Amino acid sequence: MRTGNAVVGTAGGPTVVINQSVLGVIQETEKSMHIAHLFGARRGVEGIVDREYFDLLRQPDNMLDLVAQTPAAALGSTRVRPDEDYCYRILEELKRLDIRYFFYVGGNDSARTSRIISRVAEDAKYELRIIHIPKTIDNDLLVSDHTPGYGSCAKFVASAFIGDNLDNRALPGVKINLLMGRNAGFITAASILARFRDDDGPHLVYVPERPFDLDRFVEDVEAVYTRLGRCLVAVSEGIHDGQGKLWAERVSVLRQEHIERDAFGNLQLGMGTGSLADFLAGTLRHRCKNIHRVRADVAGYLQRSYPGSVSIVDSWEARLCGQMAVSYSVDATANGSVALLRLPGSRYAVGTKLVDLKAVAPDDPPFVKTLPDKYISAEGNNVTNNFREYVRPLIGDLPRIGWFEQIAELAKFDAT
Amino acid sequence: MRTGNAVVGTAGGPTVVINQSVLGVIQETEKSMHIAHLFGARRGVEGIVDREYFDLLRQPDNMLDLVAQTPAAALGSTRVRPDEDYCYRILEELKRLDIRYFFYVGGNDSARTSRIISRVAEDAKYELRIIHIPKTIDNDLLVSDHTPGYGSCAKFVASAFIGDNLDNRALPGVKINLLMGRNAGFITAASILARFRDDDGPHLVYVPERPFDLDRFVEDVEAVYTRLGRCLVAVSEGIHDGQGKLWAERVSVLRQEHIERDAFGNLQLGMGTGSLADFLAGTLRHRCKNIHRVRADVAGYLQRSYPGSVSIVDSWEARLCGQMAVSYSVDATANGSVALLRLPGSRYAVGTKLVDLKAVAPDDPPFVKTLPDKYISAEGNNVTNNFREYVRPLIGDLPRIGWFEQIAELAKFDAT
Repeated sequence: MRTGNAVVGTAGGPTVVINQSVLGVIQETEKSMHIAHLFGARRGVEGIVDREYFDLLRQPDNMLDLVAQTPAAALGSTRVRPDEDYCYRILEELKRLDIRYFFYVGGNDSARTSRIISRVAEDAKYELRIIHIPKTIDNDLLVSDHTPGYGSCAKFVASAFIGDNLDNRALPGVKINLLMGRNAGFITAASILARFRDDDGPHLVYVPERPFDLDRFVEDVEAVYTRLGRCLVAVSEGIHDGQGKLWAERVSVLRQEHIERDAFGNLQLGMGTGSLADFLAGTLRHRCKNIHRVRADVAGYLQRSYPGSVSIVDSWEARLCGQMAVSYSVDATANGSVALLRLPGSRYAVGTKLVDLKAVAPDDPPFVKTLPDKYISAEGNNVTNNFREYVRPLIGDLPRIGWFEQIAELAKFDAT
Repeated sequence: MRTGNAVVGTAGGPTVVINQSVLGVIQETEKSMHIAHLFGARRGVEGIVDREYFDLLRQPDNMLDLVAQTPAAALGSTRVRPDEDYCYRILEELKRLDIRYFFYVGGNDSARTSRIISRVAEDAKYELRIIHIPKTIDNDLLVSDHTPGYGSCAKFVASAFIGDNLDNRALPGVKINLLMGRNAGFITAASILARFRDDDGPHLVYVPERPFDLDRFVEDVEAVYTRLGRCLVAVSEGIHDGQGKLWAERVSVLRQEHIERDAFGNLQLGMGTGSLADFLAGTLRHRCKNIHRVRADVAGYLQRSYPGSVSIVDSWEARLCGQMAVSYSVDATANGSVALLRLPGSRYAVGTKLVDLKAVAPDDPPFVKTLPDKYISAEGNNVTNNFREYVRPLIGDLPRIGWFEQIAELAKFDAT
């Protein structure tokens, strides 16, 4: 490739390791003979159109180390999905700055944006190498074995369920946790890493890959509660009914119909996952007279931004993807997306590969990867323990737990 | 005190360091010449009445180390608040096992229980030393400078806001987080530790110590949003209106009135903090046309059970309180509660003191400690930065963050 400048941007929901990928780009660019300046676009493509940049090769070294371990996108992020017209404006700015290398960190949408910019540049015969760097906590990107951002999110979810399972043991009842993932159950499935003992939760796991039936849910919880005296449940925010309608929307519609105006004047109940959580808890309270304590929480943005539980493996892989993007940009003969591939063998190891943007952002469905059938129980209400083999290596270390051993004869102790 | 056996139990909502206090009791009991057996009652007072115990002096050492760092109550916990009759049943069992030392780890209710048992034993002329060991994430116990469990909860909240503030910077909008604390704002106030730069959130903090006015809330958020283009808000679950009615209940009543039966048959929307969160977000969406992205999350049980963010200071103090309880039980001439006192001086240091159970569980209000006025802004919509001096030493280490420096001339960069 020819010599020129480079730009890097980040898009979509932040993760705790997205800055690692940016740091990987910075590190590798510093070594490159082909790139003179590295522009950090603020808010992804918005920063290019608005001409707002950070000078990434002139940052203090000690600050870079801190940025690398800082959650969320230090460059800022964007929800803008550029159309062709927007991409022409981008191209004009790239020309102005002699940018020949474009690194875009993001998920499905960003891969698609990269594809459009790639085509626009080609049409204009502007020599540009554009490399998409994978990022999403949802882990729903095609081709890659997994995506940077997922491992840390999975570690947070696993840790949260380790704590909540112990909490639920200490004060038994029914506890429901709603987890992110509109289309794919990978995040929710990570909750099974909290299972150490036979009766550890989550006892039920509902993913968007299977329809969610409310009657069935009530029966499932009652069965577990009858057996164990408690029940811990993991539910994807993306659960839908048999007709494909999101339960979060059903609950909202329910509410909109009934509460347009209310006793306090103009107040309106909002819609969202908090209501879905309360709805599920309320349904159990209403229908199961033998169940006394029910609580539902929504893990929310903590899943993508909590700074205390970053996976070391995830950090390293995010950095690697950034580095490899620069490396591929100089050597490869085509634009593409960096994919993480799990290498065969009994010990966990990954490699990277540059794949066609079209493979990650295809014209026809499926547009996203979902949880494979082999990890979902036949009844569709659980994730099987063999998912552990897939997810465990991505997490790094997990909190270890202990418990008191029951020594039976003590119960019969008699004072003399 | 006379020689005999001992029992330890834990009550109320678990914390991540409650097991440290139990371990402190075990360690100190092992050294004691006065105590032969140490019974670990399952589920607090319930285990005594049900005769269910762990033999705590016969646990494997390596398991004890693990239990110490494990969240939630390894002995199990209880919500039972014994009356006098229940305490007589407890006394019968203590007599049966020749238990002369009773250690009860918990909050206000447990201190009150300890008071009743103390009186019942005294009336029966049964020689019993009962020591209450403080524990509550709410930090609302009287006398103590702070309570074991709070430091780790505060660390979790601070970490969560550090992440969420960066997330909100990367993708600007309004973000509301609901935090535990029905009467006291200590947990919510810990969110201010996320402020590093001038424009860092939380920008608004609402605690139960001040009435929450919905119109005022909307104005507050709009003002911050207009100034910064984003707004991060910390809200206590315990906020109430000018008449002292909980907002969580108001929202529930609202809902109950409107949705008794609905379009889907027998479904009922539940009540809870998720609904309050969605209600606050919905109100902003409805009233503020210029604000586009609004999301509200409820931190939930993670605040008391998340295993990845334990404060080392909190762990140590929880252990200390357990150890001192045993120490006081042998030496002191009266029953009481272990209090943590902050020693004067510029460097943080604590000591313990055995205080009267009546001081912690008094007959007349105030029954709980609340956030002092000096930490609440005059407008009642924020917690001031001087709260940092109080809370920071309790947290141990916090995640450090970095950011890219803006270098202005680059924005004007022109390719040659």
